[in-house]
Amino acid sequence: MAANVAKRVLVVAGAGNGSGTGAATARLFAKNGYHVALIARGADSLNKVSEEINAAGGQAAPFPLKSYSHEDIATTWAAIHERFPKPEYEVRAAVWNAGHGVWKPFLDITPTDVQECLDTSVAAAFAFARHSILAFKENEIDPTNGKRGALIFTGATASIRGNVVTSAFSAAKHGARALSQSLAKEFGKQNIHVSHAIIDGGILTDRWRAMKASDPSSITDDNVRLRPESIAESYLYLVNQDNSSWTWELDLRPAHEKW
Amino acid sequence: MAANVAKRVLVVAGAGNGSGTGAATARLFAKNGYHVALIARGADSLNKVSEEINAAGGQAAPFPLKSYSHEDIATTWAAIHERFPKPEYEVRAAVWNAGHGVWKPFLDITPTDVQECLDTSVAAAFAFARHSILAFKENEIDPTNGKRGALIFTGATASIRGNVVTSAFSAAKHGARALSQSLAKEFGKQNIHVSHAIIDGGILTDRWRAMKASDPSSITDDNVRLRPESIAESYLYLVNQDNSSWTWELDLRPAHEKW
Amino acid sequence: MAANVAKRVLVVAGAGNGSGTGAATARLFAKNGYHVALIARGADSLNKVSEEINAAGGQAAPFPLKSYSHEDIATTWAAIHERFPKPEYEVRAAVWNAGHGVWKPFLDITPTDVQECLDTSVAAAFAFARHSILAFKENEIDPTNGKRGALIFTGATASIRGNVVTSAFSAAKHGARALSQSLAKEFGKQNIHVSHAIIDGGILTDRWRAMKASDPSSITDDNVRLRPESIAESYLYLVNQDNSSWTWELDLRPAHEKW
Amino acid sequence: MAANVAKRVLVVAGAGNGSGTGAATARLFAKNGYHVALIARGADSLNKVSEEINAAGGQAAPFPLKSYSHEDIATTWAAIHERFPKPEYEVRAAVWNAGHGVWKPFLDITPTDVQECLDTSVAAAFAFARHSILAFKENEIDPTNGKRGALIFTGATASIRGNVVTSAFSAAKHGARALSQSLAKEFGKQNIHVSHAIIDGGILTDRWRAMKASDPSSITDDNVRLRPESIAESYLYLVNQDNSSWTWELDLRPAHEKW
Repeated sequence: MAANVAKRVLVVAGAGNGSGTGAATARLFAKNGYHVALIARGADSLNKVSEEINAAGGQAAPFPLKSYSHEDIATTWAAIHERFPKPEYEVRAAVWNAGHGVWKPFLDITPTDVQECLDTSVAAAFAFARHSILAFKENEIDPTNGKRGALIFTGATASIRGNVVTSAFSAAKHGARALSQSLAKEFGKQNIHVSHAIIDGGILTDRWRAMKASDPSSITDDNVRLRPESIAESYLYLVNQDNSSWTWELDLRPAHEKW
Repeated sequence: MAANVAKRVLVVAGAGNGSGTGAATARLFAKNGYHVALIARGADSLNKVSEEINAAGGQAAPFPLKSYSHEDIATTWAAIHERFPKPEYEVRAAVWNAGHGVWKPFLDITPTDVQECLDTSVAAAFAFARHSILAFKENEIDPTNGKRGALIFTGATASIRGNVVTSAFSAAKHGARALSQSLAKEFGKQNIHVSHAIIDGGILTDRWRAMKASDPSSITDDNVRLRPESIAESYLYLVNQDNSSWTWELDLRPAHEKW
Repeated sequence: MAANVAKRVLVVAGAGNGSGTGAATARLFAKNGYHVALIARGADSLNKVSEEINAAGGQAAPFPLKSYSHEDIATTWAAIHERFPKPEYEVRAAVWNAGHGVWKPFLDITPTDVQECLDTSVAAAFAFARHSILAFKENEIDPTNGKRGALIFTGATASIRGNVVTSAFSAAKHGARALSQSLAKEFGKQNIHVSHAIIDGGILTDRWRAMKASDPSSITDDNVRLRPESIAESYLYLVNQDNSSWTWELDLRPAHEKW
Repeated sequence: MAANVAKRVLVVAGAGNGSGTGAATARLFAKNGYHVALIARGADSLNKVSEEINAAGGQAAPFPLKSYSHEDIATTWAAIHERFPKPEYEVRAAVWNAGHGVWKPFLDITPTDVQECLDTSVAAAFAFARHSILAFKENEIDPTNGKRGALIFTGATASIRGNVVTSAFSAAKHGARALSQSLAKEFGKQNIHVSHAIIDGGILTDRWRAMKASDPSSITDDNVRLRPESIAESYLYLVNQDNSSWTWELDLRPAHEKW
């Protein structure tokens, strides 16, 4: 069965409450013909995102999990493969967008804070990457882009810079970035494309809207924060890059960001 | 006159012999509705690229120059503005793809080698950037992507790493990269988008074909060298990124590149 | 009581089997008048290193721990403070040299591998750093170097680059490096100096000697691997740097290393 | 004649007005037994620094030059070799501390600004490095540190980051940094040690004193700017590092610097 006959599946982890990068990516890929498997911890909001995509004519399925432990991630991927079995379906893209953020002076950070950052942003990324790579290895090389699959990590400013209140967060984000680089080097040779996007600015999520309620221009002005839909466009671009010239890392920031 | 009514112009410096990144970018932008102003030192090949684009239904004009001195660059831009005057035309994109490469052990490098690298890859980049920025500042913000214009620098592995035979080349490429970062920070606030693409691998140019004549797979295999057309796609993507989430830097390499 | 009257204490974690960076640092600081508190998991070799330093006229004490859990690290630091109480003693330097290395293709890496890397090289580094910083904050500023204390992290090539068999190791080492940068930024203002040394090459340990038994020149030739004593010299230099010009990061490699 | 019998010579370019890094390095090396050859454009202040070192019991000689052209640099090195001939003397250390700074918005930068930055901070650095390397290659390996010679480049924040008013300055400083990395890789194998120091903060020079006259604490407080003597200490440390563990790059900043 040719690669271009099977239905393409995107797996997104960290679809959050539906207002962020994960959900925007799911929506955009759904519009572009992908079936989308949505992973997140909150079943309710996940179901909502899934239903919304289906109502808009897309094909989505929610896979809520209790935790980002490697066991739960394995169970979730098993369920995804059951719902989207080969050869009818093929997982061709995966986005690791989950994570745990802590912003505190170093001496206020608890062992639990550190553990949660490492568990969710690093150990879980290893587990998710493993299942993504294993799924991609089952695919033939897609003649349209020369790849078996594409895995994208959502990074942050903290992925490349430790700062005063980001010791735990940046340690974890640096770890995930290193993982993405190792994978890009190891699996490029197998035509599996691994990328890392450094999101260097605030993202217009529901949380941002709540936080910035008193400063309306920071909500309405595209120059000062990233639209999740725009990040999703860059993810689609990365997935579509062909094997002669693909990107491990790019940065994304609003036009007026100071950096 | 609204931004979306004027005809868009792309200015490309370093269109080379027609087989590389500059020419491929010109062709792709021409197919996407841009008028293209082609700059290079070799008038013959430049005319050929220009004619070929026009024959294919595009709109191109050649602007050969004698040298990449700041005077010649100024004269060239004056000619471009005369050929593509406002308000009928607007320069909306510019690609700095010129450069001078030297690969020699350090003690074999002459003062002239150093000077030519710095002149062509740094000083000329300053001059080209100046005219690009000045042109963009005349534009209204384009409502489709939130920017006045986009300037892209073609970088190389040597832009981020000095190596044994690249002392002169990498000094110059590091310089141009620093320029691109300074510009990105200064002019982002004015909705002018400046990017830098690290081309980390060999590009399938005529020169590559000649050099690799005895190793056919390095010519035919997309996994081992970059297609100029594929680099051009990434440049078009960068130009189209909107102001909420744009990229200063990305790397581009073939799938099987060792890095 | 003036800072220069109390006896200076160095705490080293990861004194290993006595042949590596941690033990060499302990010996060098002991020769320079520091009392040294040695932390490692293997009590036998730790006792040996400690006795050897004492036999040579130094002042050392072993603090073996069962694991690098934050509880065991807390218990160990309590024991150190009991053994070296203020105001007679002051912890003025700390070196985090522990870690867990895994070199495997990604798909061979187990969840346990990932966990051990993150536990030992990141979470434990957070705990050790916490106790170091808390100890330093009790000190007056030393008039000889303008600091309350100095904390050094031993890094590796993998701290700045993910590679084919280092996904787990480099994820952890990147995390510790990010921590060191966050700390340097947060606590520099309190005259606490945090540094990170990138060891970019093989270290002449017992393990190296065993591994390279068939290639004697890689053991005897200083140009091809790092001497632990030489790394220790750099750590002493970092601790002695004054507050007007101190270093967060330096790299260290043998003269003939390819990089 | 054994390496340790010849008198060691340090060549410093950019000894400025005597209040900065170059002069402080000359003084410190003179105290440590080096004969110092001082290079700068201003003969008067250069003579003063030289006399002052000699009055303090050191051995210095001034080599003023008209410009940092490669011809003038060649002439200067010929004069240095004449004054400090082999085998009585050996050039064992060289510091490139010259440069030209421009801090202006991009559109205010003139072609002359760009040219002066590139000439002084890059092209001249190539010429100076060439003569340093050629001199070192004449030396035997020094048994005390395993090297033929050490060349240090003074870098700046702008060496690693382009910023709003530093386009010309940072382009040049990036270039010199790339050169230093290429040299470190090429000549490490010949036991020639090349380093780059990123000075990330203001230096307490006469210029700083004048600029900060209204803010006395920024002059007196070691936490907020670098003492040239402290930078010089780091240069001496770099020169003394042995061949098993030497440094290409370190950063230096005051304790309270925000970064």
